[in-house]
Amino acid sequence: MNWWQSGFAMGVPALAVGGLLGYEMLAQPPALLDGPTIAEQDNLAKRESGVTDNSSMRLRMEAFIKEHQQLIVQALEKVDGNKFKVDSWQRPAGGGGITCVLQDGSVFEKAGVNTSVVYGTLPRAAIAKMRADHKALDPDVDSLQFFAAGLSLVLHPKNPMAPTVHLNYRYFETAQPDGSPAAWWFGGGSDLTPSYLFDEDAIHFHRHLKEACDAHDKGYYPRFKRWCDDYFNNRHRGESRGVGGIFFDDLDSADKDREQLFAFVRDCLGTFLPSYLPIINRRKDMPFTEDEKLWQQLRRGRYVEFNLVHDRGTAFGLNTPGSRVESILMSLPLTARWQYMHEPAKGSREERLLSVLRQPKEWV
Amino acid sequence: MNWWQSGFAMGVPALAVGGLLGYEMLAQPPALLDGPTIAEQDNLAKRESGVTDNSSMRLRMEAFIKEHQQLIVQALEKVDGNKFKVDSWQRPAGGGGITCVLQDGSVFEKAGVNTSVVYGTLPRAAIAKMRADHKALDPDVDSLQFFAAGLSLVLHPKNPMAPTVHLNYRYFETAQPDGSPAAWWFGGGSDLTPSYLFDEDAIHFHRHLKEACDAHDKGYYPRFKRWCDDYFNNRHRGESRGVGGIFFDDLDSADKDREQLFAFVRDCLGTFLPSYLPIINRRKDMPFTEDEKLWQQLRRGRYVEFNLVHDRGTAFGLNTPGSRVESILMSLPLTARWQYMHEPAKGSREERLLSVLRQPKEWV
Repeated sequence: MNWWQSGFAMGVPALAVGGLLGYEMLAQPPALLDGPTIAEQDNLAKRESGVTDNSSMRLRMEAFIKEHQQLIVQALEKVDGNKFKVDSWQRPAGGGGITCVLQDGSVFEKAGVNTSVVYGTLPRAAIAKMRADHKALDPDVDSLQFFAAGLSLVLHPKNPMAPTVHLNYRYFETAQPDGSPAAWWFGGGSDLTPSYLFDEDAIHFHRHLKEACDAHDKGYYPRFKRWCDDYFNNRHRGESRGVGGIFFDDLDSADKDREQLFAFVRDCLGTFLPSYLPIINRRKDMPFTEDEKLWQQLRRGRYVEFNLVHDRGTAFGLNTPGSRVESILMSLPLTARWQYMHEPAKGSREERLLSVLRQPKEWV
Repeated sequence: MNWWQSGFAMGVPALAVGGLLGYEMLAQPPALLDGPTIAEQDNLAKRESGVTDNSSMRLRMEAFIKEHQQLIVQALEKVDGNKFKVDSWQRPAGGGGITCVLQDGSVFEKAGVNTSVVYGTLPRAAIAKMRADHKALDPDVDSLQFFAAGLSLVLHPKNPMAPTVHLNYRYFETAQPDGSPAAWWFGGGSDLTPSYLFDEDAIHFHRHLKEACDAHDKGYYPRFKRWCDDYFNNRHRGESRGVGGIFFDDLDSADKDREQLFAFVRDCLGTFLPSYLPIINRRKDMPFTEDEKLWQQLRRGRYVEFNLVHDRGTAFGLNTPGSRVESILMSLPLTARWQYMHEPAKGSREERLLSVLRQPKEWV
């Protein structure tokens, strides 16, 4: 089962796509359970002893993403000079989220940093599909509790020389009716979308991601870099969305143990600020022309096309009754433009960007 | 089978959606046929005797939409004072289209008027699915030739007081390998999308459509008005795209004979200019504030959401190898905006529009 990123991270579980799980899943009343639900267990554990290294991975992941949400928001507020608007919201069925948005700032046209935590139950049909990727799941149960937690961000800077960046890391877990674990996995990634390509920015960004990957597995960066190029692709245009980064999903015990993968995800998220802040700092005040701003707006249009046409998480989220649409669509730019038959001039920087998007490069 | 509008009309056959027809359909080489293909027959007939009332419906529909494309383009050029850019294009497998676009004009931010004509073959699996709506189709053939022709337009005016309008009319036909007819149907409609609602505009627009419908069947307007409200709905927002109009599909001999339906479609298209020109003429020069322009941009964002997320023709087109993306996405506005958690003021005109979009009204 694929657990698609942005839908999840933008405020819906985004458990699956293309009919893998029925939309009714979210609307389901909680199943009748033998013992306390994992939501109840987690609430009790938090009240009794807080969150420590001995807590469940659910609680540790939740604490980790919320802590990093704060760190990132604070760092971005320093860059922009303006404050994020913070909305906390609860899911009636369990869990909730924090959506932080800075709109029309000094540096960022739109910046969204979102965490969400979801407790729910999966029906039998969904479990059967999930087994394709997670053999540990018992096919002979009628329902499974699940937990999903993730952090997601999209930053659209104002200056056309400064690239858009997207990041999402997430953890998913299922539990037997008695609360014992059934399966778990991690997913995530981060990618860069410039309107004007500075090779040094792409190299800097990829180098940080490669270092985070290499510390855990030398095979990760090439594998997840390719996965990112494949996923963030506007197939109808024959163009990548941007210059890529990394993307992975369904990382579970078939790959490494849970502590190792959590450490990997922590390092990936930990490398975000050093991978992006130097770039935004050197681009945010560069001079630009009106034509360059127009080109950025056209590239924003492509960003919208990817997110609304191809991103499976967004599609799933928008088709899920009761999802928080404003959190899902937080990823869209403040402004975008579509111009019929726009063609960059021969030999221009705009044309060079397109040629790189049509043929993804190795940056490190 | 549904034959979705905008994809088709924007330059791809958009024969079907949701897996009804495989994407490979368009990429198929022409089937081996017993006699001349319908494309060959039509080419020959055109050369020998031109297009008259005795010509095939394929040729009459093609001539009809091309003639009206010219009339509409000329009328809109008079309103705007600027000329459309005209692109003619051929499909290697048969047919082609004419895309007329006026961008950043005096009155229109973006106006697209498109005709397209497609000759191709449908594989067996597609025919089986189509039989659900068209019993005349023989399930025991390996492939069918098909023909599709349509006119589509979308006009996005600059002035936020002037509504966006969309229209699409199309004809579809299949033929046995020997060229004899198998099934045919018409589809289409027209709908209005204001940013600021003037009831008199909605009433005027609907009244013209109702008159065109009533002249052919008193049951058409209520049926096709409801169909339009159901189809042009941003379900994730719980909002209609606009104040509706009419929408229909799969109108075939189960409904009326072909001459009657062609006459109906001619009247529908014929009523377009009188239904819209008085509206654009009284709105195009109205004064407006910067805030009203911003609200229009947010509504443009909703238009993009519908077209990219829900419109089955667009989705089909974008996923069809070899389709003309620029013609499909001609329907998108020049500029759009997404603002996190925008809420119109209580009692404002913006709020009233939303309340009408959430609960479609009867206008005539």
